Amino acid sequence: MNIVGDETFRTVPVPHSRCPMRWERWEVVRVSSVVASGRTARELLEWGWRTADAPMRDAVFRLLPVTCRTVVGYHFGWWDRHGQPVNGKCGEALRPTLVLLSAAAVGGRCADVARVAAAVELVHNFSLVHDDVMSGDVTRCHRPTVRDAFGMDQAILAGGAMFALAMRMVAENGGALTARAGEWLSRCVVRQCEGQFGDLALERRGDVALSECLAVAAGRTSALLECSCALGALLAGAEEERMDSLRAFGREFSIAYQLVDDMLGIWGDPAVTGKPAGADLVRRKKSMPVVAALTSGTAAGRELAAIYRTDGPLDACQVAHASELVETSGGRSWAQRETTARLTAAATHLDMAGCEPKAHAELLALVGRITTGEHRGDLP
Amino acid sequence: MNIVGDETFRTVPVPHSRCPMRWERWEVVRVSSVVASGRTARELLEWGWRTADAPMRDAVFRLLPVTCRTVVGYHFGWWDRHGQPVNGKCGEALRPTLVLLSAAAVGGRCADVARVAAAVELVHNFSLVHDDVMSGDVTRCHRPTVRDAFGMDQAILAGGAMFALAMRMVAENGGALTARAGEWLSRCVVRQCEGQFGDLALERRGDVALSECLAVAAGRTSALLECSCALGALLAGAEEERMDSLRAFGREFSIAYQLVDDMLGIWGDPAVTGKPAGADLVRRKKSMPVVAALTSGTAAGRELAAIYRTDGPLDACQVAHASELVETSGGRSWAQRETTARLTAAATHLDMAGCEPKAHAELLALVGRITTGEHRGDLP
Repeated sequence: MNIVGDETFRTVPVPHSRCPMRWERWEVVRVSSVVASGRTARELLEWGWRTADAPMRDAVFRLLPVTCRTVVGYHFGWWDRHGQPVNGKCGEALRPTLVLLSAAAVGGRCADVARVAAAVELVHNFSLVHDDVMSGDVTRCHRPTVRDAFGMDQAILAGGAMFALAMRMVAENGGALTARAGEWLSRCVVRQCEGQFGDLALERRGDVALSECLAVAAGRTSALLECSCALGALLAGAEEERMDSLRAFGREFSIAYQLVDDMLGIWGDPAVTGKPAGADLVRRKKSMPVVAALTSGTAAGRELAAIYRTDGPLDACQVAHASELVETSGGRSWAQRETTARLTAAATHLDMAGCEPKAHAELLALVGRITTGEHRGDLP
Repeated sequence: MNIVGDETFRTVPVPHSRCPMRWERWEVVRVSSVVASGRTARELLEWGWRTADAPMRDAVFRLLPVTCRTVVGYHFGWWDRHGQPVNGKCGEALRPTLVLLSAAAVGGRCADVARVAAAVELVHNFSLVHDDVMSGDVTRCHRPTVRDAFGMDQAILAGGAMFALAMRMVAENGGALTARAGEWLSRCVVRQCEGQFGDLALERRGDVALSECLAVAAGRTSALLECSCALGALLAGAEEERMDSLRAFGREFSIAYQLVDDMLGIWGDPAVTGKPAGADLVRRKKSMPVVAALTSGTAAGRELAAIYRTDGPLDACQVAHASELVETSGGRSWAQRETTARLTAAATHLDMAGCEPKAHAELLALVGRITTGEHRGDLP
């Protein structure tokens, strides 16, 4: 099965009402959102959430003192800040769903990897809670962030506790492969921290190469997504080659995922993303389309660089102009081409993994939905 | 060998020039600082530092980008903030020394546990770096803290990276016991975070029981110290009973260690501790001797409680009075009795572990030195 030229994944230039990309190639992927005999991406993410939620709650419930438990449960949308149950949810559960589907793809039982699926979601949320401390953001999932609701100290401690809990869940999973799973997950978090350091460094520097941006994305975004795929396969007892293929699938997919995120940060519809128009430009973020523009050698790129060198916040007019400059300089078309190339590579690696057909189709469905940017509208 | 009634550990009521405890029972332990045929505690800590330092540097050197590496190396006193080597050192290397000696105590080779010794030191320093963010402290080891030198973002990320690196080093250690070591270390960090949450909760509450203080100390201080002892024994292939005994030794010792720290926070000599006189009282910290005083049911305890309920910083006169109240109410003598009881229990557990004689003597020497409070004067 290949993402290009296949009946299921043919290009369908249907305009998409909620996705502001105006890019018909998205539709190549979007079609795969529903695959014959498989679940839709939305159903998959719901299932991933439910499956990981149970062992995650089980682990968090045992945290003491109650404040520790409350802060973590609040972040996940289970409880309000006083520990009273609420009907909330935070996040899309992409990573646990990848763990589960990767295990299924190599013939494993999802129940056997549910705890590890929960662990990767904990690791992801450890970094989100710390990210919110660093950025000073006050809202996540339409609620006050942990830092805003409980204070910085609690947020820093809760993040650390979530990471430690994740490592404990992997270690307690038992079996011959446990040590290797722990090695992969801890290595992944080292890479994630390195990526975040790289990100800080790039934001402070004037001249940034596109290769550096990609290296940062490989740490920040890819490390955990590819680790999720690899862990599912590992714990289901897959052969090395299949694990490598699933890891490579996750890596390529995750770069595409980051590129879509970067494009939404510039051209995303505020009604869908929940962020202001051109949010990344307002903050002068050096996202990949921006750096592609800055390093394009074009007049538009130089004009964008001049805007990025100014001080103070950009007004709506400047933001609109900057987004046009990214487009004129070829930053947008580069990001689109790169996304397609990464998705094609991801599909190829998935082919090489020789997956169970249903899981194969469902992994592609997941990729398809995520890369449309639609999922950003799902958050509560 | 028993800490009470033994020739090496007899009570010697020699006044101690640098230790302001005015408590002759300290001398029971102080005598054990030098044991026949063994190394002194100072030599042991130096050796522990050197042994753990090599694998730690090796791991940190491979961090990328350079800023990530620099921040971590700066914290350890290897480099200045620009990454230039300096002749510094931060910390006493107690935890790695415990790993090494516990391995030796059950007949293991120190070289085999050097990486795990480095890992526990990384975990300890992960929490120190985050502690400095939370407390806003600007000085550690007579230099600006990571937060002060590099900013909060770098400090939060560096702490996370250090923890992840520690877990990776344990996982990469290899061998059949790796998974269990990872489980113990991650469980220990969960407990440590729980203890820190507990500490925050106690500081905000008016009525605090002594048992709650001890539970918090069991997380904050004991978790990693007892884990260090247990890990050394585990990786040297000790039987369950010996591991349990060494863990229990570490647990009892660590409570004594925290009690000494708490006493130094009230009666410590600023010239030795590097902190202002009565530092913990200035901050109205609910350390164990203070809570023993507050819950003593004495008039002095009630007067201390009234002082703790006031707002604003305490002046030198109030601090001196508060420290007298802790003493009058029996808080100090309780702490001294509890310390002796814990040290005696620690020595008993060590007896039960059936250690190699040299390592046994050296573990006691280490305990002896640390509990005198002398080590606080060693920091650069």
